[in-house]
Amino acid sequence: MRVLGIDPGLRNLGWGVIEADGSRLSHIANGVCQSDSGEDLAKRLLSLHEQLTDVFNRFQPDTAAIEQTFVNKDAVGTLKLGQARGVALLVPAQFGLPVGEYAPNKVKKTVVGVGHAAKQQVDHMVKMQLPGVVIEGPDAADALAIAICHAHYSRGPGLNAALGAAGGTGGLRIKEVRR
Amino acid sequence: MRVLGIDPGLRNLGWGVIEADGSRLSHIANGVCQSDSGEDLAKRLLSLHEQLTDVFNRFQPDTAAIEQTFVNKDAVGTLKLGQARGVALLVPAQFGLPVGEYAPNKVKKTVVGVGHAAKQQVDHMVKMQLPGVVIEGPDAADALAIAICHAHYSRGPGLNAALGAAGGTGGLRIKEVRR
Repeated sequence: MRVLGIDPGLRNLGWGVIEADGSRLSHIANGVCQSDSGEDLAKRLLSLHEQLTDVFNRFQPDTAAIEQTFVNKDAVGTLKLGQARGVALLVPAQFGLPVGEYAPNKVKKTVVGVGHAAKQQVDHMVKMQLPGVVIEGPDAADALAIAICHAHYSRGPGLNAALGAAGGTGGLRIKEVRR
Repeated sequence: MRVLGIDPGLRNLGWGVIEADGSRLSHIANGVCQSDSGEDLAKRLLSLHEQLTDVFNRFQPDTAAIEQTFVNKDAVGTLKLGQARGVALLVPAQFGLPVGEYAPNKVKKTVVGVGHAAKQQVDHMVKMQLPGVVIEGPDAADALAIAICHAHYSRGPGLNAALGAAGGTGGLRIKEVRR
């Protein structure tokens, strides 16, 4: 199963693609879609849409996941992020793919083992899980972590059950992820 | 010139199309794109994208405008609106159209003559401006008001200059709109 994770943002939208074969994970690709802050908002969203559509076309994922957004930022930041997130959710839906959503703490808990891990820890564990990966920046690292989290919850009782379960309060530790 | 106005929203996204011939305005169509709150967010955004794309295909506007969003709502509401707004901005950009953005107060000031007009006043003046119009609900009325505002600022010194000027502090009174 090929999983694409997305860390949404208007200026930098991280993405990461992994292959999950049972509990074995391997890295396929990762990167950051960027938009020029000097451009019109509509053109920036169009550019992100085109770049992300290209990623889906190139890597043909079977499923996608996106980070659930913290909404306790300032309102202007929340609106900007919301607009980018709208486009990020639209693209997998246009490809007919289910989109998992995971809170940042759930992603950390799944990948690192604790919900309040530092960014470096997430980075480190992503590299451990995906040997040989070269990460194209912090947003791409987060996107790969989201993909790993989604792969974890999509194993076993079928994707739909896993997507349902992902809304729960669980979050398995890294030693279980690596079994 | 055919102008399409958009009042963005996740559940109800209003749209209105008018024809502007110099200072003469006429109504073409208006409506509301809706998404089912029981559906997944990604599917709702996909549905709005498809409905709004259909509106652009059917009515072939030359330019579009959208309401600038108040960001002093609750954060969850701002995020939802942002996601719908991202899709609403994407569609005209995909058609290669410029998108004007107008603050609600500017729309009201242009259409009614005062920045803090009540909804009924806006409704009334939209009907005065577009004789015979049947408005498909409050979101469509707002969208028509945005289209009227954009038509007003797009007249005269060319669209680009008008779009630039629209960012200013002006806002002409209704008697000037109707000259």
